Amino acid sequence: MVSVGVIGSGAWGTTLALLLARKGIATTIWDHRAERALEMQQSRENKVFLPHIYFPDNLRVTSDITEAVTDKDLLVLVTPSQKLRENVRLIAPYLDPKTILVSASKGIEIESLQRMSEVIAAELPAWKDRIAALSGPNLSSEVAEGKPTAAVVASSIPEIAVQARTVITCDTLRVYTSSDVIGVELGGALKNIIAIGAGFNDGLGYGENAKAAIITRGLAEISRLGVAAGANALTFAGLAGIGDLIATCATPLSRNQQLGRRLARGEKLDAILQSTHSVAEGVSTTRAALKLAERYQVEMPIAHQLSLILFEGLDPHKAVPELMMRDPKGELEGFV
Amino acid sequence: MVSVGVIGSGAWGTTLALLLARKGIATTIWDHRAERALEMQQSRENKVFLPHIYFPDNLRVTSDITEAVTDKDLLVLVTPSQKLRENVRLIAPYLDPKTILVSASKGIEIESLQRMSEVIAAELPAWKDRIAALSGPNLSSEVAEGKPTAAVVASSIPEIAVQARTVITCDTLRVYTSSDVIGVELGGALKNIIAIGAGFNDGLGYGENAKAAIITRGLAEISRLGVAAGANALTFAGLAGIGDLIATCATPLSRNQQLGRRLARGEKLDAILQSTHSVAEGVSTTRAALKLAERYQVEMPIAHQLSLILFEGLDPHKAVPELMMRDPKGELEGFV
Repeated sequence: MVSVGVIGSGAWGTTLALLLARKGIATTIWDHRAERALEMQQSRENKVFLPHIYFPDNLRVTSDITEAVTDKDLLVLVTPSQKLRENVRLIAPYLDPKTILVSASKGIEIESLQRMSEVIAAELPAWKDRIAALSGPNLSSEVAEGKPTAAVVASSIPEIAVQARTVITCDTLRVYTSSDVIGVELGGALKNIIAIGAGFNDGLGYGENAKAAIITRGLAEISRLGVAAGANALTFAGLAGIGDLIATCATPLSRNQQLGRRLARGEKLDAILQSTHSVAEGVSTTRAALKLAERYQVEMPIAHQLSLILFEGLDPHKAVPELMMRDPKGELEGFV
Repeated sequence: MVSVGVIGSGAWGTTLALLLARKGIATTIWDHRAERALEMQQSRENKVFLPHIYFPDNLRVTSDITEAVTDKDLLVLVTPSQKLRENVRLIAPYLDPKTILVSASKGIEIESLQRMSEVIAAELPAWKDRIAALSGPNLSSEVAEGKPTAAVVASSIPEIAVQARTVITCDTLRVYTSSDVIGVELGGALKNIIAIGAGFNDGLGYGENAKAAIITRGLAEISRLGVAAGANALTFAGLAGIGDLIATCATPLSRNQQLGRRLARGEKLDAILQSTHSVAEGVSTTRAALKLAERYQVEMPIAHQLSLILFEGLDPHKAVPELMMRDPKGELEGFV
């Protein structure tokens, strides 16, 4: 009998827990807030992120870290990216040597510029060969409703990727394996930058043609950074690259797109962040990506223009010529 | 003073003529139906495809082929793909030796399996070094409204691509050049197959995650065919590849997507085609692509499943497992 813990009770953590439990796997979600954990455990739903989607009996919610971590075959780590390290430290004392750790968070730690699996490996060196990363076009609400979805689980150890796939895959969430952890993690993280750009485009009323151009040029720049960082270019042409980018940019509900739309209306970042309780990962990812771009000497014009709007107060309309389309020239100039 | 003729008065032909005329270029649209040409010339709008977008004074509509073709610097050919050859034969007697021919049609001729520029070159060998192909994420209605858009013009002769770009590019339609005619034309043609698949997905209510997966796997299969046919793989990662695919799959108005949605509801192809007066290019392109796939020994699972639904009466729901996601495995298996 397989048993799984999920560290993080946001929309995606809850969704993964729902799917695992529906499959018959004993699943425990951990929330550090005792009151909130109790509320979810009793109401049998996550009222904040997935209202009216009820938990199967074999899904438990707890604020007791030992209960969530001890004796699990697989642990899904799905916290905001900047909070992952402190959560990994919290689970460390209770972790079973056999447990596989799957990161489902999409981001880059700003201070260390580490990917999520690197943060886990740095904190838990004894588990470094038992880590995998899950990513793909996975809008939580659709997955929770049981709509068909595909994802990729990557590990440098093929057997770990296969084991993680076996646990997570189900009729409606088809999981493919990959050995390209760098590409799968960077695709999932960096796409949030382009999603802000796509929202920005919508906020200006520019339409689907311009949005498709931003996604296309955005994919080029995140692929460039990924390849420079050691990823396989083909990963960005796959589910964890263009797939995730398309799904994220297609839904107006994405937090990063909402942020972009509000920026286009002239709202300032501080005001936007204060008015929402969920995390737009794209903000910290933009900072981290530009630092990585500097390290690897890669051009990221969209991320650069967004950073000027986000952090330097640039008038959004002044960024448009750069964001949208620069001087006409050969399409692949500077991209090959 | 530059002068341009546009052969074809559909949504895209009219849109390109509008942009050229707004730029100050004397532009003539040709429609073979005298009555319809006169109606457009007098009402100053294309009521069928772009109602309420009025023509500048320097845009003429004529059914006189000599007037449309004679003494033009550039001629845009933008007819349904299966009608291109007969139209090229029609213009041939009046064509000036200096005229540049730009194909803006997106399709493959079924009988010959030729791309549009190949059809033109076959019929007009003396112009073979004056041909270019225009493609990209260019939903007509948005372009006609002046929303920002990017496109690619490709020619095997760099100077011709630059000249075509100079004529066509404007503030709202940014044109890039490319030397990859094969890739640019195949990207524009083959994306309509995947658009049918995306509409099919929507018709089944499967959501954005599944649609992103179809687009991703669809891009892989059209890139595979393109590369086998001599295209540059990077073209499919650009505006004429993934860019056009995303824009086409994003708009519910696309004829190919509408077709897919109706197929998903169980309607038969004949009935759908009889009920609409515009051409869903994806139907003939699916046939042509599968013949090319056979020639080049390339697998196209999405096109194959669609052809079973379109032409063999396969129950759409039986195609879903194939279309959506096959047995879980390594993501890049069979794709590299």
